[in-house]
Amino acid sequence: MKIVLIGANGTIGREVQRKLREAGHEVVPVGRSSGELRVNLEDRASVAALFRDLGAFDAVAVAGGEVAFKPLASLTTEDLVFSFRSKGIGQIHVVQEALPYIRDGGSFTLISGVTGREPIRDGAAAAAVSRAVEGFAMAAASELPRGLRVNVISPTVLAESMPAYGAYFAGHEPVSGEKVANAYLKAIEGRMNGDTIAVGA
Amino acid sequence: MKIVLIGANGTIGREVQRKLREAGHEVVPVGRSSGELRVNLEDRASVAALFRDLGAFDAVAVAGGEVAFKPLASLTTEDLVFSFRSKGIGQIHVVQEALPYIRDGGSFTLISGVTGREPIRDGAAAAAVSRAVEGFAMAAASELPRGLRVNVISPTVLAESMPAYGAYFAGHEPVSGEKVANAYLKAIEGRMNGDTIAVGA
Repeated sequence: MKIVLIGANGTIGREVQRKLREAGHEVVPVGRSSGELRVNLEDRASVAALFRDLGAFDAVAVAGGEVAFKPLASLTTEDLVFSFRSKGIGQIHVVQEALPYIRDGGSFTLISGVTGREPIRDGAAAAAVSRAVEGFAMAAASELPRGLRVNVISPTVLAESMPAYGAYFAGHEPVSGEKVANAYLKAIEGRMNGDTIAVGA
Repeated sequence: MKIVLIGANGTIGREVQRKLREAGHEVVPVGRSSGELRVNLEDRASVAALFRDLGAFDAVAVAGGEVAFKPLASLTTEDLVFSFRSKGIGQIHVVQEALPYIRDGGSFTLISGVTGREPIRDGAAAAAVSRAVEGFAMAAASELPRGLRVNVISPTVLAESMPAYGAYFAGHEPVSGEKVANAYLKAIEGRMNGDTIAVGA
């Protein structure tokens, strides 16, 4: 399959690239701030332009999106709007804008995170956005035409990210990027629709 | 208890008012477009002003908030931002702005909906926002000081709303407003924290 991978240069994205290529797929890497192809998930026009220029493809996977990490009392309207726009509405627009170009039977694989499943310090905005993405996929699955599917990967903290984010995840069992990438492969090649695949506890 | 009820004049709000008064509580009704006290959930300053002027209280309950109902392909950025701002970020701001005034051991009771649990026609935005509210409560519960609690009521369609919205809910078993109001009472007088109470299938 030809798979468009948004957030291809992040910690998860690099592992997903490798895994999908190992499985024989063609990956079109898209970055936020690096690489040949770029997209700004906060800007629907940028998302639309990406797909308009790509030609046909079989799947879209998202491995990035930003949210504000702050204590509840410090979260501003701007923090919340930014978080919902980047990782929430941004991923919704990916599905909407890719729809005219994706081939029959294709799939969308979005990303949420453990913040939607467990209370993580400073994670109130992240929790809201993660769950929003999962709810969207549940409902949007029922609207997709032509055998298309949409699912969400909800990874816990990655082993590779523990040096940077370990203070938020004391006692958590991190997962390998390889295991998270495997969940993307499962969502893309599998038959589930509207589901969230939790990776790690 | 003195309970501030936002969305007091809606179908659910009226039932919640009645139920809470029957249980011996003092209700301060707040409307969006009617009544003496009003608030615009899309405007944080309006939420802040409401609580600043109220004096101390024991609980805040929300029984309203708007979302766009449209097919996935028709949802604009504006529809999504509006939906997240009104029912999503609006309810987050209610918790934030009421925090300085709510008494020790008090509670917040927010609202999501069956759209977050089941795919409903034209409900992709509503699904995302409902789940966002539930995720927020799960995470925010861990941050609340002074024995405060936050929970979410997720009602299915009300019997009273079937004449207006029945076409979206064919085959659903509607619940009475009285039953939904009872869930609010349970959240307010109970001990749960960070939970979502589903009312109806």
